[in-house]
Amino acid sequence: MIDQTQLPRAEVRLETSDWREAVSWISALVVRGAPAIGIAGAAAVALAAAELAASEEGAEDASGFMARLSAAAQTIAQARPTAVNLAWAVDLVMRQARARAEEGASSAAVVSGLFDDVDALIAQDEEVNRRIGSHGAALLPEGARILTHCNAGSLATAFYGTALGVVYAAFEEGKVARVFADETRPVCQGARLTAWELSRVGVPVTLICDDMAATVMDAGEVDAVIVGADRIAANGDAANKIGTLGVAVLARHFNVPFYVAAPTSTVDLGILDGSRIPIEERDAAEVLEPPIEGVDVLNPAFDVTPASLITAIITERGVFRPDEIASSVS
Amino acid sequence: MIDQTQLPRAEVRLETSDWREAVSWISALVVRGAPAIGIAGAAAVALAAAELAASEEGAEDASGFMARLSAAAQTIAQARPTAVNLAWAVDLVMRQARARAEEGASSAAVVSGLFDDVDALIAQDEEVNRRIGSHGAALLPEGARILTHCNAGSLATAFYGTALGVVYAAFEEGKVARVFADETRPVCQGARLTAWELSRVGVPVTLICDDMAATVMDAGEVDAVIVGADRIAANGDAANKIGTLGVAVLARHFNVPFYVAAPTSTVDLGILDGSRIPIEERDAAEVLEPPIEGVDVLNPAFDVTPASLITAIITERGVFRPDEIASSVS
Repeated sequence: MIDQTQLPRAEVRLETSDWREAVSWISALVVRGAPAIGIAGAAAVALAAAELAASEEGAEDASGFMARLSAAAQTIAQARPTAVNLAWAVDLVMRQARARAEEGASSAAVVSGLFDDVDALIAQDEEVNRRIGSHGAALLPEGARILTHCNAGSLATAFYGTALGVVYAAFEEGKVARVFADETRPVCQGARLTAWELSRVGVPVTLICDDMAATVMDAGEVDAVIVGADRIAANGDAANKIGTLGVAVLARHFNVPFYVAAPTSTVDLGILDGSRIPIEERDAAEVLEPPIEGVDVLNPAFDVTPASLITAIITERGVFRPDEIASSVS
Repeated sequence: MIDQTQLPRAEVRLETSDWREAVSWISALVVRGAPAIGIAGAAAVALAAAELAASEEGAEDASGFMARLSAAAQTIAQARPTAVNLAWAVDLVMRQARARAEEGASSAAVVSGLFDDVDALIAQDEEVNRRIGSHGAALLPEGARILTHCNAGSLATAFYGTALGVVYAAFEEGKVARVFADETRPVCQGARLTAWELSRVGVPVTLICDDMAATVMDAGEVDAVIVGADRIAANGDAANKIGTLGVAVLARHFNVPFYVAAPTSTVDLGILDGSRIPIEERDAAEVLEPPIEGVDVLNPAFDVTPASLITAIITERGVFRPDEIASSVS
């Protein structure tokens, strides 16, 4: 994977065969973005399986192997709490591994099945994103000026992106005049990742600080806001990178449509509404370094945009009103 | 003056007798904040007068002295375009200097009159801020939780501050539970200046990134937003630090009162509405350094909040609805 903490300064590709290192990379934002950490989590499960199988070579204890793999999978799924895609992907590949083990597959066969599953997830994610892109591009006017927050692009997925998948599809159709990329403090995924990946393929992009979004909307320079999502509750409330809620409020005030672009794997029917979505609180040092004595710091990594502020949710299955999302995936 | 570009890392006090250096400090944000750059501008006029008087010692050409001083004053007044207080203060001391010159005062007497005028401005600014504080504190509930953007505190004025003057007055009355300080990208006056100055006097302060303001308002943790202003148009529209407009939109959405605290010298009756207020565009490097090829950057230093989003304007003469502000100062 590309080390996203070093972008755009340096494009460093990292490899590991150690699943614990992969987990630490997920926690440290070396890889981030809901679909991307899902795939990274699934890959970590495959690496954990390979390690367990190697250490137990010759052992006949297949049920012990699966128990130890399940424990590793649980650790992997908890590397970050908010994006449901991580738990979703880990759960998906673990169910397939268990099914194979129950059918009598050897540890080695379970391992190789897991690596195949990861490859399939990667291929499927790009295909899903291209469908999201195609559905979303149809919503945009010619010469569209789009504002996005954080990074829901190629770097956040296997390839192509969700929110930026819509941008790329519309750009391929010649419909994109400009993208405004919110800086997205404190980790600056907008400045470091979105602006960088859009500029590399020639999409006209203007970087703004988060507190400038109101100004460009007020000036009539934004036709649509498109963001990704880390978890969508059954009622259509959507958790996404901190700052998304504020952008949604601005979009409503300035009469700009506000779209969430996400695969249906981001919908969590087990969560009734956004108030139940766990929100990761990250280290204060991301906001203020060095600390100032007597100054407290908040650093929630995500916020929840209520369904009432979302114009539509763009998925690989089509475009849905937030209140339709539960029935669209079940 | 304290070099505000070095806070909170280092508390460095700078002195100069060179008015051109004072102008460069105003442009470079060594001193910033509408009332503070007004005073700094007036002081620069006094320094320019002293330099001219020294270079022309013995010369009898008093009208030449005033003409050269007027030219310097014009340069000083243009060091930054948006805050009207700079032009207001320079104009004020220049009118007094001209009156003295017309009454036959010597160059030396004009110079000493200017230094007296600067001292008077400093004393008057603190007195005005204490009145703003007293009027504003009366608007706040017990246990008030206040959100502010940028720095309108002691560092932005002679002493005590406008928006933070309200905080300090309410804190002295035991009414302040907490202040949320927006980071205020790109120059981070909230993180570097507001959080620092509040923490030094023991006001409980929580630093947030600009894109977290919606989250704390949504959680019901903000009772009032109080910000300063750089120029208030006759119709009550108010220019202030970039990001203020967005906070005002959020405050309206979450039903939080939004107050502008400013001396009446910030009201510019020559400007009918906010669309006529000149907005300073600053260097892209403040937002993105080093630049990324193919990535444009916007960096407007101010935005305009329409009167319709302002609950009230707190001045030294009392609290006014935005549509009352013109009659309150004329």
